[in-house]
Amino acid sequence: MPIITLLTDFGLSDTFIGVMKGVIWSIAPEAKIVDLTHHIQPQNVLEGALAIAESVPYFPAGSIHVCVVDPGVGTQRRPMAALIGGQYFVGPDNGLFTLLIEKAADWTEAPVYVELNQKRYWLPQVSQSFHGRDIFSPVAAHLARGIALEELGSPFADPEVISIPKPVKTERGWRGQVLRADHFGNLITNLSRQQLPVDGGVILHVKGESINGIVSTFGSRPAGDLIAMLDSGGHIAISVVNGSAADKLGVKAGEPVELIAAAGAGQ
Amino acid sequence: MPIITLLTDFGLSDTFIGVMKGVIWSIAPEAKIVDLTHHIQPQNVLEGALAIAESVPYFPAGSIHVCVVDPGVGTQRRPMAALIGGQYFVGPDNGLFTLLIEKAADWTEAPVYVELNQKRYWLPQVSQSFHGRDIFSPVAAHLARGIALEELGSPFADPEVISIPKPVKTERGWRGQVLRADHFGNLITNLSRQQLPVDGGVILHVKGESINGIVSTFGSRPAGDLIAMLDSGGHIAISVVNGSAADKLGVKAGEPVELIAAAGAGQ
Amino acid sequence: MPIITLLTDFGLSDTFIGVMKGVIWSIAPEAKIVDLTHHIQPQNVLEGALAIAESVPYFPAGSIHVCVVDPGVGTQRRPMAALIGGQYFVGPDNGLFTLLIEKAADWTEAPVYVELNQKRYWLPQVSQSFHGRDIFSPVAAHLARGIALEELGSPFADPEVISIPKPVKTERGWRGQVLRADHFGNLITNLSRQQLPVDGGVILHVKGESINGIVSTFGSRPAGDLIAMLDSGGHIAISVVNGSAADKLGVKAGEPVELIAAAGAGQ
Repeated sequence: MPIITLLTDFGLSDTFIGVMKGVIWSIAPEAKIVDLTHHIQPQNVLEGALAIAESVPYFPAGSIHVCVVDPGVGTQRRPMAALIGGQYFVGPDNGLFTLLIEKAADWTEAPVYVELNQKRYWLPQVSQSFHGRDIFSPVAAHLARGIALEELGSPFADPEVISIPKPVKTERGWRGQVLRADHFGNLITNLSRQQLPVDGGVILHVKGESINGIVSTFGSRPAGDLIAMLDSGGHIAISVVNGSAADKLGVKAGEPVELIAAAGAGQ
Repeated sequence: MPIITLLTDFGLSDTFIGVMKGVIWSIAPEAKIVDLTHHIQPQNVLEGALAIAESVPYFPAGSIHVCVVDPGVGTQRRPMAALIGGQYFVGPDNGLFTLLIEKAADWTEAPVYVELNQKRYWLPQVSQSFHGRDIFSPVAAHLARGIALEELGSPFADPEVISIPKPVKTERGWRGQVLRADHFGNLITNLSRQQLPVDGGVILHVKGESINGIVSTFGSRPAGDLIAMLDSGGHIAISVVNGSAADKLGVKAGEPVELIAAAGAGQ
Repeated sequence: MPIITLLTDFGLSDTFIGVMKGVIWSIAPEAKIVDLTHHIQPQNVLEGALAIAESVPYFPAGSIHVCVVDPGVGTQRRPMAALIGGQYFVGPDNGLFTLLIEKAADWTEAPVYVELNQKRYWLPQVSQSFHGRDIFSPVAAHLARGIALEELGSPFADPEVISIPKPVKTERGWRGQVLRADHFGNLITNLSRQQLPVDGGVILHVKGESINGIVSTFGSRPAGDLIAMLDSGGHIAISVVNGSAADKLGVKAGEPVELIAAAGAGQ
């Protein structure tokens, strides 16, 4: 029985997530359920889109990912399910799956997008504000039981995508931005290995601070130092050794980051 | 093997919940465990009572709900287990199960209440402050293994109930109150569909604000608007579109809400 | 299939923990996974060491505990796995397992410590900052599948230990300290049953307050009273009945606590 993952902005202070699991296990008692995170910022579709795309490579083929960051719940936005690269995605058609859709052409099998409209696979009563419980959880559970994607709705070809901030080439390097701060206060940027010059020498400018070079580990510098390193997702991250860069710099998502190629400036 | 749910005020910053799962799986390795929530406000039995009652309908028959909001732990309050409407409840006899007890008569089978006193189904050592680990988890695990409820203790007929704030009829409508704010800052009230006039036209007054009508979805109004809608539990909830009504109004549990029937005032 | 527990300082706001579960279930789909806690204070190895040692007794033989509080990730600190008292431990060799190592001699079977260096049991790509995903999760999953500990690396005999604050005998009693505050604001000290005089009469001094005697339950005193009792882990804890001692006293880990034996002063 496949894994069903849950990624939402619902938090854990209410019973939303517990109830979704009750719905799933009522239909597919043998499904394994993983909480990816429920602390996406409320209504932040971009943050959800980044989080699901980075998580998917660590799950086996056939996994089913239920993603609900859904400011348009109850409006005309389509509920959808998709098969991309051998894994399933269930949630609102509002751009949450943008990064997966953009990379769908990398896979040999074409993606399949389905508008969910077969109400026999939903809860009997559908509320206006909790499709995570009433539509997406039961649909995921039926997928887990082996119901074919095509049974769940009607195919469509134009899933919504949102604009993902991409690095911009400048005269001396690249202009990027902070995408988010993680739990440790590391500032994850949209700059990555591809923006690094071959010799690795760079200077980063963020909020008036300059960071010289990309270090390979936290242990390379003393506690309290502001550093840049490649994080576990391949992004350039700005960190404070054993501290919080988010706190030290007072920086949030969207803050500009300048990368300047500086031959010989790196480690 | 049935589902065991856990609902507590223990939070997730300690190992309390992880240890309860160790105890459960030591006895019933095949049980499925769901966290309903562990963020009930400390010692807030009313909040726990509302949360468990709303969650139960989404779980299959035979599920076992362990609920621990237990300011009287270690005192003479009874530890109890119950069978109501085909599902099991385990926890302190302090009113946590009030709403389920009040509705027990709706089921064809009479409820069974048992005072837990068969210590062979507990951990060998019972602390004075963590019956969730020492009594309720092992009892739930033994129920999951198929031990009969009657084996676990002595039947009793008078479980504790607490006063649940109910709406009061007024000359022009109903007087209710805010029960709690959810993760999104939606203010969940004790007013529900039953208090709405047939034509649906109402005005709500809360903390000096007036809200005209019940909208059907968040998408019906622009971001930032203060609205009222029926939430996924059937309650009238006061919300800010893509924002937090709790923050905007500075309102907490207990805040009065006036509902005034206003023929033709609704949408 | 055994239980795998996870104890980290990763928090739940990112997808770190969800991804670790994806890695585990990709290798060992039948493993049961328990979150012990992910809210150890960032880089606080002592807090992690205390938390895992208190949790272990509630898990069955053969359980596998993945513990990651790892300020030295990516440096020369060894990744390790151990077998102590019939249970497995996987994580950085930085003192996280100190209390278990100190008690290893209590078991009839000698402990086994292995430096993880068999990369065929790791993810193919290992990052510099997330060994929880890339090394420790796959190693735990392979252990769960039945791979022998000795297959995973090379034995060693000198695991790192850290200094655990121990109570100090004084003329009139003991000098201890607060180890941490729990979710309820109970202040857990390093004083325990062993420091109590036989007649139980004691006075505790903490931050200018005196507490007379050890009560047996919260219900022994009125709400708001400052009390001391033995907590569910056997420690002397300082609490406020239905309140938070951490908030009332403004006290954190490390705060001194004086225990004075006072014959006849107890309850």
